[in-house]
Amino acid sequence: MADERTTPRRRTPRSDGIRTRQAILDEAARLATVEGLEGLSLARLAERVGMSKSGLFAHFGSKEELQLATVERATAIFTEDVFEPAAEAPNGLERLQALLESFLSYVEVAVFPGGCFFASAVAELDTRSGPVRDRALGVVADWMSALEGAVRDAQAEGLIDPGVEPAQLVFELDAYALLGNGQFVASGSKEALDRARRAIANRLDAVRVARSL
Amino acid sequence: MADERTTPRRRTPRSDGIRTRQAILDEAARLATVEGLEGLSLARLAERVGMSKSGLFAHFGSKEELQLATVERATAIFTEDVFEPAAEAPNGLERLQALLESFLSYVEVAVFPGGCFFASAVAELDTRSGPVRDRALGVVADWMSALEGAVRDAQAEGLIDPGVEPAQLVFELDAYALLGNGQFVASGSKEALDRARRAIANRLDAVRVARSL
Repeated sequence: MADERTTPRRRTPRSDGIRTRQAILDEAARLATVEGLEGLSLARLAERVGMSKSGLFAHFGSKEELQLATVERATAIFTEDVFEPAAEAPNGLERLQALLESFLSYVEVAVFPGGCFFASAVAELDTRSGPVRDRALGVVADWMSALEGAVRDAQAEGLIDPGVEPAQLVFELDAYALLGNGQFVASGSKEALDRARRAIANRLDAVRVARSL
Repeated sequence: MADERTTPRRRTPRSDGIRTRQAILDEAARLATVEGLEGLSLARLAERVGMSKSGLFAHFGSKEELQLATVERATAIFTEDVFEPAAEAPNGLERLQALLESFLSYVEVAVFPGGCFFASAVAELDTRSGPVRDRALGVVADWMSALEGAVRDAQAEGLIDPGVEPAQLVFELDAYALLGNGQFVASGSKEALDRARRAIANRLDAVRVARSL
């Protein structure tokens, strides 16, 4: 096996394959936020990435496998763009703020043309059943858990009023973030994201424990 | 022309036609909240209402005409179920509460299996263009205007703090209602609607002018 440190720019067939697969799935995830995961046909995607349908079929085998791989790729992007930037926050309150702000930034920079991939997927698949829906809902559940964990930590740290019910506060904060996402996509105006940011700041001001206590 | 008052149970071909059209569109609107307005093919709908595709084609002519007629029917249902019950409220604050409660009831009794028809349509069509999207967004704009009008009236009546920005308050209240809708459809649990109701009540408590003033 060649020493890869001496040939950093060499591309093995395997890494080429991984790069191609990732590029296809990035396009699939973008397309899914516009035309839906159900609208994600191998034929339509082949046209977008400039490959033959049979070439794509060799990568994914079926529409469901393509959908699952797309959800997996979108999960990696969400983790990198939303969860990871918040992980370094020094306490629960700042982690809560960082999670919500990184979510709104991920919407604002239009990682996906149809806004948050998971908001889009859940709105489409909520009345269906199957593994694609279940995995998309799993990421939403992870998101809610991360917010709720941050609220509980902030309460334990004396930063958020301990009388507040974490799940209720998370419902309200998530509601602002999601309507910001939805209105931003429909209108193209950042005003919706400003409204979401203001709502989050006001709500947190109302539950924050005053410094002097 | 026959005197219709003397033959109240007689069904003219015309009223039969209207009844049939309405029954088809009720089914189309239900189907659209599950499979999307784009998924609403004449073939699929024909199967659901037990008519031939050519029979349906005689009613609507094209998929876009069917989509537009479906949005129009859903608008009539939304008006009857959400706008009208609130119209009798004696003041702006009670009208605001009635609009939000009638929205949550319309979701809760599952008028449509996929929750609010317009939330579903906008989530699907937000990145598209065309008259179907525009009419669905028009109903959402009417909803936001009705809420904002109620807030302004309540401020003029001395019932809501005049320092509150109406559009910001409406954003927050609408966010709770929409997340209640979304989570209720995805989970089937009424807990989401309870959370939305609690969030609305708490938010209005915070902006309500105290009686003694």
